[in-house]
Amino acid sequence: MKIHGQAYRTIWLKHSELVQIIDQRFLPYEFVVEDLKNLDQMCLAIKDMHLRGAGLIGAAAAWGMYLGALAIKKTDYFLELTQIGQKLKETRPTAVNLAWAVDRILFKVEKVSPSLSELVNLIEKEAQLITDEDAESCRQIGLFGVKIIEEISKKKKGDVVNILTHCNAGWLAFVDYGTATAPIYEAHKRGIKVHVWVDETRPRNQGSKLTAFELNEEGVPHTVIADNTGGHLMQHGLVDMVITGSDRTTFTGDVANKIGTYLKALAAKDNGIPFYVALPSSTFDWTIRDGVKEIPIEERSQDEVRYLDGLSPEGIKNILLTPQTSPACNYGFDVTPARLVTGLISERGICSASAEGVFSLYPEKNY
Amino acid sequence: MKIHGQAYRTIWLKHSELVQIIDQRFLPYEFVVEDLKNLDQMCLAIKDMHLRGAGLIGAAAAWGMYLGALAIKKTDYFLELTQIGQKLKETRPTAVNLAWAVDRILFKVEKVSPSLSELVNLIEKEAQLITDEDAESCRQIGLFGVKIIEEISKKKKGDVVNILTHCNAGWLAFVDYGTATAPIYEAHKRGIKVHVWVDETRPRNQGSKLTAFELNEEGVPHTVIADNTGGHLMQHGLVDMVITGSDRTTFTGDVANKIGTYLKALAAKDNGIPFYVALPSSTFDWTIRDGVKEIPIEERSQDEVRYLDGLSPEGIKNILLTPQTSPACNYGFDVTPARLVTGLISERGICSASAEGVFSLYPEKNY
Repeated sequence: MKIHGQAYRTIWLKHSELVQIIDQRFLPYEFVVEDLKNLDQMCLAIKDMHLRGAGLIGAAAAWGMYLGALAIKKTDYFLELTQIGQKLKETRPTAVNLAWAVDRILFKVEKVSPSLSELVNLIEKEAQLITDEDAESCRQIGLFGVKIIEEISKKKKGDVVNILTHCNAGWLAFVDYGTATAPIYEAHKRGIKVHVWVDETRPRNQGSKLTAFELNEEGVPHTVIADNTGGHLMQHGLVDMVITGSDRTTFTGDVANKIGTYLKALAAKDNGIPFYVALPSSTFDWTIRDGVKEIPIEERSQDEVRYLDGLSPEGIKNILLTPQTSPACNYGFDVTPARLVTGLISERGICSASAEGVFSLYPEKNY
Repeated sequence: MKIHGQAYRTIWLKHSELVQIIDQRFLPYEFVVEDLKNLDQMCLAIKDMHLRGAGLIGAAAAWGMYLGALAIKKTDYFLELTQIGQKLKETRPTAVNLAWAVDRILFKVEKVSPSLSELVNLIEKEAQLITDEDAESCRQIGLFGVKIIEEISKKKKGDVVNILTHCNAGWLAFVDYGTATAPIYEAHKRGIKVHVWVDETRPRNQGSKLTAFELNEEGVPHTVIADNTGGHLMQHGLVDMVITGSDRTTFTGDVANKIGTYLKALAAKDNGIPFYVALPSSTFDWTIRDGVKEIPIEERSQDEVRYLDGLSPEGIKNILLTPQTSPACNYGFDVTPARLVTGLISERGICSASAEGVFSLYPEKNY
């Protein structure tokens, strides 16, 4: 997608010894491209959230394996490669895509058993494949999801389709396109009039900082709102559909996503507004039936609620929002029960949020 | 209520020529008492929100009339007094309590027709009465509301009662006690174990800044949360009841309150949690039947969403939270339909959120 009118992905191989990423820590205020030349730099970039988001973290781990492999000197390299993978996995232990990408590369290497001179080349190809597949997955989600927007646009006789989204399931969280945003970008590209209500998404404000930045750079009409606002907008016919991403989806259709998603789903239901969740297949959890009861919810630092970063006239500042001694509490996600979800959009298509719907797209999982 | 262990109201007559208020602009970071010596100073304090909140604004208008009257020199004073009232009414044109307090004093003066030497004394008495009545109203709300908390405490065998509140319907919005907070303070005073989940209440953060400050100073256990968090807490049995305030209440029980209240009411309903609204009788609107359709919702400056104040190491700073060119939208209130409200708590008692319930407490309005 575009930044300052120029096409970017979130991660790319600049030349054989240099990976570059968009350093998201300074968005939306400054656009910074970071050079990553070795494993340690990539580990730091993942750990300190220079980049974040399920799909992007997977691609970053793959390129971390590549950078690590560049430094291998021993012909008997497999143990060293495994240790490189272990180091990457430990940067953010709960991110499933991290382990998935590392293991995929280790598996590939083990299968092919290349010579040391061929190793780097093999890993580069696999990392590029992982990167391209992530982008392609999101592109497919866009192609399926845009049909829903087209349908609403037709019903409104070409009038603007108002879409509410929560958090950042945009291209900055993946390699390109994003999940929740992919149908929006595709609609915009096709000339369908869309307008996006961007939940600011406290406490980390990924909506007002990242989603708004993306939409702004792509020229998609949008408006930032406090997370409190969506219900009122829905009561007054100002929202035609909701699309969010998902961090984990049960095969029964329950969706764990950024905290606050459940509240928007309740409001959508109360006002008869379709509520869609866009997700790559990798977020499905095939072992869990009851999301509310069984999905563990990460509790993050209370200081993410108590303090907030933003741009002051003297540069980026961190400010305290509460009394010094008031404690805060910070659950990162909540679970939206399937009964509130109109449909799931994956790279395989659209299905209802139910075991029946999910298995119709993933028959191989129904054993 | 207490600040730094000392009892305060939000406004008081210090001596015959000096009204003092708590200047709320610097809370929770600094506690400032402001001297108001004349009408202009009071008008500025209301207009620039050194003080805010329905009940408190009414009392401030009354003391503004008093300060204005101090400067009257002509024996034929009534026109001048009316102009003073007009000036006060214009400070915040939508605040109903402002006009109510001004008109009450004008009416009293007209009725008694005191000599100029008696005028100031008469207005002082009436302003004090308005102030005391506001505090007493809130105290009564506390006495009625505490019964609900006591009941839950009994059911939980004395275990902590977890109460969620949104925005600041606390004593800082009134003369003392507050509305939503009055039952909580009363419960705390009686030794009932309570814990308050404080919605930070974006965009102006009256929850994290004012409600947390109040509870902190009173020693009431509390935790600040992002507005997104309440639904998750309710799904997991961590909320026993919700109490909010109201800015306008239809006689049918629909409640206009700070934006986001509706989302919490939906979550409470979905999880079988009682949702109460505490309000002084003055917020009832006896003319409106359908709150969602008929109550006009104030749209405020988008910069309240785009920028936020807080304490940095270099003092209070205002920071930008969005891309420079992303627009924002800022509805101040939303309407919670009566079907989501368990009960209304006013200074007359508790009733169901319905015309039947409301008229049972206010039979004189049912004509």
